[in-house]
This record gives sequence, C-alpha cells and structure tokens, in this order.
Amino acid sequence: MNTRNRTEISTLGEFGLIEHLTSNLAATNKECIKGVGDDAAILHYSSDEEILVTTDLLMEGIHFDLTYFPLKHLGYKAAMVNFSDIYAMNGTPKQITVSVALSKKFCIEDMEDFYAGLKLACQQHNVDIVGGDTSASLTGLAISITVIGSAKRGESIKRSGAKETDLICVSGNLGAAYMGLQLLEREKIATAGKDMQPDFAGKEYILERQLKPEARKDIIERLREEHIIPTSMIDISDGLSSELMHICRQSNAGCRIYEERIPIDYQTAIMAEELNINVITCALNGGDDYELLFTVPIADHEKVSTMKDVHIIGHIVSQDMGNALITRDGVEMELKAQGWSNQQ
Amino acid sequence: MNTRNRTEISTLGEFGLIEHLTSNLAATNKECIKGVGDDAAILHYSSDEEILVTTDLLMEGIHFDLTYFPLKHLGYKAAMVNFSDIYAMNGTPKQITVSVALSKKFCIEDMEDFYAGLKLACQQHNVDIVGGDTSASLTGLAISITVIGSAKRGESIKRSGAKETDLICVSGNLGAAYMGLQLLEREKIATAGKDMQPDFAGKEYILERQLKPEARKDIIERLREEHIIPTSMIDISDGLSSELMHICRQSNAGCRIYEERIPIDYQTAIMAEELNINVITCALNGGDDYELLFTVPIADHEKVSTMKDVHIIGHIVSQDMGNALITRDGVEMELKAQGWSNQQ
Repeated sequence: MNTRNRTEISTLGEFGLIEHLTSNLAATNKECIKGVGDDAAILHYSSDEEILVTTDLLMEGIHFDLTYFPLKHLGYKAAMVNFSDIYAMNGTPKQITVSVALSKKFCIEDMEDFYAGLKLACQQHNVDIVGGDTSASLTGLAISITVIGSAKRGESIKRSGAKETDLICVSGNLGAAYMGLQLLEREKIATAGKDMQPDFAGKEYILERQLKPEARKDIIERLREEHIIPTSMIDISDGLSSELMHICRQSNAGCRIYEERIPIDYQTAIMAEELNINVITCALNGGDDYELLFTVPIADHEKVSTMKDVHIIGHIVSQDMGNALITRDGVEMELKAQGWSNQQ
Repeated sequence: MNTRNRTEISTLGEFGLIEHLTSNLAATNKECIKGVGDDAAILHYSSDEEILVTTDLLMEGIHFDLTYFPLKHLGYKAAMVNFSDIYAMNGTPKQITVSVALSKKFCIEDMEDFYAGLKLACQQHNVDIVGGDTSASLTGLAISITVIGSAKRGESIKRSGAKETDLICVSGNLGAAYMGLQLLEREKIATAGKDMQPDFAGKEYILERQLKPEARKDIIERLREEHIIPTSMIDISDGLSSELMHICRQSNAGCRIYEERIPIDYQTAIMAEELNINVITCALNGGDDYELLFTVPIADHEKVSTMKDVHIIGHIVSQDMGNALITRDGVEMELKAQGWSNQQ
C-alpha cells in the first residue's frame, strides 16, 4: 500500500468508484461504438478482420505479491501480458475490460494507482478501456482482464502450424523476469521487520523485466516489414520449455534446441550464479518473460538471422524424435514442462 | 462440496485439468474459427453486426456461498447472468470464456460439477465456450466470465434512449431471487451443526429464482415478433430501483412507477411476510432478478399491454421531476439506489 492519503472506498461506493476510475475514457479506436457504462460494450469490426479474445484472472498471493509489487506496476503488467497474447496471434490489441475485486485493506488511492498503470499500458499500445467493474472481496485483490484485438482475416497465427525443418526463433532474452522475482523475494526476506532498504544495485534490468514487462509489438511489426510469416507463434509466459511443447504438441511435431543459442542477459547470469541456480533451467522454466516464440520456414533463414533482437535457437523435427535440448557438450536432454499445480 | 469421489487437482495439474474440462467442446456457431487452446480465441463476425462484450468477476463469500449454492448451479448462473447482459442490449450471446481460480479445498469432481452447469446454460442458449483457464487461489473460488454476443448493426439498445412519456416495462416478477436468498440464509443458520434438513416446502419457486435464474431470451424474441423496439433496456441484477435510475440518469430523464403495478409472485409475498420485510422494498432493492427493464414509446401501449409476462409499471417524465414511486395510497416516494459498498 502507499503512504499517502487514504480515502476509504465506502466514501464513493461501488458505482461512484467505477465512475471515478473510468471517467475521461474517450475511445480512440474506431471499432468502439460504446465503451464503459452499459450492460455490454458495443464494438464494430469489418468483415475482413478476425477478432481475437484473450482473458486472464490474477489472484493476490498467487500471481503477485503486493509487499514488493507496486499497484501501478501491477495495472501495467496485467494489461501488458494480455496484449502479449494478442501479438502472439499476429494481431493488434484494441479493447480491454477490467474487473477488480478488492478487500477492505484497499483505498481509493490504491485503485487510482492500479488504473494509472493500466491506462499507461493502454496508451502505449493504443488500446481502449471499454468495460470496468469493481466489487468486494473477502481477502485480497483479484483482477480479471479481457483483451479484444484483431488480425487481418486469415492472418492469425496459431500454435499448430510448425513444420519439420522450420527454424525455432525467440525474441529478446529469457529467464530475466524469473531472476527479478527471485531477487525481490530474497530482499523481501532480508528486509522483513528491519529498518533497511532492499539492495537492487546493478540488477535494475532483471527487476524491470519482472515489474514492467513489455509486449513485443515491435517484433510483430518487424516480421511484417520483412514479409516473414511465422508458421506458429506463442508468447512465453510459463517458460520456454512449456511453450515450445505446446507448439510441438499442437503441430504434431518435435524439436531440437541448443543450449548455447538460448539468449540470456548477463544480469540474469550473475543473479543465477549468486543464487546457485542453473541459468539454463531459469531460461527454460522461469515464467513472465513475455517474449515471442515462433517458427519460420527454413527459407527465411537469412532474413531472421539478421533481425534485431531475434535469435534462432533450434529447429522443428518429426514428432517421433521428441522434444530435446542439446547441451553445450552435445548431450540430448528431454524437455519437460512445468506448469501450475495445486500443491503449492 | 460433494460427498462423492474426491480426486485432487494435482493428479492432473493445470494443463491437464483445463484439457479435461474443455475437451469435446466443438463450437456450434459459425463465428468461432478457433476456440480453446491458443493464446486467444479467433472469431469472425460480418460487417452488418455489432459485437457486444460483457464481463463479470464472482468471488466466493461475496457473490455466492457454497454452503448452500451447489457448484453445478453456480456454473449455470455465472453463465446465465452474463447472457442476460447481452440480451439486455438486444443481442444474442455467442461465445463465452471462463477463468477459474481455486484453492486446495476443491477437487476435480467439483470443477466437473461447475462445468456441467456452465455447459448446460451454454447449450440452452447456443453459446460456445472458446476460452478456459484455471489457476490457484489462496482462499476460495474466483470466477471470471466474459461473454461475446452480437446484434444487427445499429440495433443494440442502450440505457440512454428513454424519452418523456415512454412506458416503463418489466418482465416476469421481482424480489423472488432475493427472498430465495433470505430463505437459504435462514435455513443455513437453522440447520448449522444439527442433523436436520433445511425446510423448503412450498418455497420451491423463490429458491429456483435464486439458484437457477433464466436469462429472458424469450422476451427479446417476442419484442422482435411484435416489432417493438425499446428505446432503452437494462437487465435487473441490482434491484429495480438502481437499474431504473441508471436508465433515467443516462437518458437525462425522470420516472414515475406505481407500487400496485410492480409484479410480485405470491411465494415472494409470503416469504416477505414470514420475515417481516416490506415486499416492495424487496422488489425495488433485492438483487439477482435478471428480468428485463425497458422503455417503449407510448404508441406501443396496446402491443406491450397484451404481451405475455410483460408489465407496464410506470412512465418516463422530465429529468427535473426526479425519480419516484407512487404508493398505493398515492404518496410519492423518491427512488434510491442501493449498490455495493465496501462496508460489509
């Protein structure tokens, strides 16, 4: 929570709060006929567009920890990770709806912070907030986001189109957001109950990857400029390994990726060293990267190999060959996915 | 929870659970190109349609109490109340996405029950489940639903079109679901810790209104058949008073409604009598009715007055006259809204 003024939500009430948060929300995209304030938003898309819909439910204590995650950053990230899903379909995000359930520990200023982050993300990606809702919660904060976007008809890219010999590409670098999370957790424990500040010196980049992820609109634009049409695409939210296995399973294919080609930032490597964690394990299984993972025909090798911030990390093989990582010393290791389980 | 088998969710894991729940979900509407299983659903609507989007976030302990609300009914209701929002725009619901966050007290069979109710509601209204997601929650169950629907271009009905002299109409009857809730709460307390069954004899209707509400698709169809185009419309989720005030405020109008014309079922009246509650207060402020409230030009008086299950309860006046209920003895009482506040 912040240390500024604290105005109880009861001073505005449910309708007053949502009006307060969503006033001055003029829609900028032509597709929005009616935004916030009716039983449903009214949109209009032309027949030569496909409509993309993605949704996320974020729970305090599971998906975020407010002891170190500022609400403004949370609003920004909640929007951004859903934009990322739309870009991963080769689409453009256009509208967002936001429902929030909050317990009594939250005040109006908290919700203003959350919405400030949300609006900033929306401005940067030219997305209109077309639906908003707040209600009570017994414990903690729950956030539900739905993003609607569009792609040209027939140009949405699914997970299922990867073909044998296709090149496997990834944007940016991996494992940084996970290392940022480990750093935040370490400093939370180190500073708990003590009159000291967390030490983040020299680790700003991995922190930012966790607290302020950016959806890779730039990569989608560059692929279009280069006339590269990926055969499959997904965004990396649960770790490279898990996402690559989604592509392989849905494409009835297998894969080979190379340890030495997996892009890792030096701050990620240093943090992994400090914590005595294998940095490749972080890159394979750490979440929250929001980089794009995609496959392209081998004919596009030259084009993708010169693309800024895109890395060819392997290739697609036949399904019976399975999914494997080739280590630096040439050993083949089977890829395994690590998703959420109810055992935490 | 149920008393049948209990299979821990960890036996399937996150991806296994969602696959288990959403397998065999063939889309039946032509608008769905790709449903569950990618970064986003892919839809296509024609240019002569408007797209309607509505979303809801339901929290255990705030919006529902699982000690008396069976999970199958909860799934049914969660879908139905969102269909109701689409009908209230004069639209047709087409697709639904469902995200669920659940704590460790829930098992696979619980989620099967929830999805069984959800699927039943979807079958009845020909709606496709196009997105699904499950994650963990520290405490209780959170459900996020988004419904996408369509209306013919220019035919969506907003809250803002009511004009002076328009007739105010309501479908069905009011206050029953609220009385059903009071009954469930009373029997929960009466039977707590005792080896006895709750007594619902003669009160089946009000129970059903709470546990199994139905979205009024039939009213929308009949309005079309009769060529009646409401000037404004809303569904009654927070009580007649609150919804009517939304219409009046957004239409820059006032209203007069008549106590004697407010439709109330006899089971609602009997239950209110038993609990010593004013039944009109229930009808005005009790939630969960999911009836349609709409206004029509006075020229349609004859047509609406003969419509089955539609009641004319008053008329629109100029804004400066305010919003009032005329009691049976001719007294004018100002209408007040009762929404959620954070004081519970």
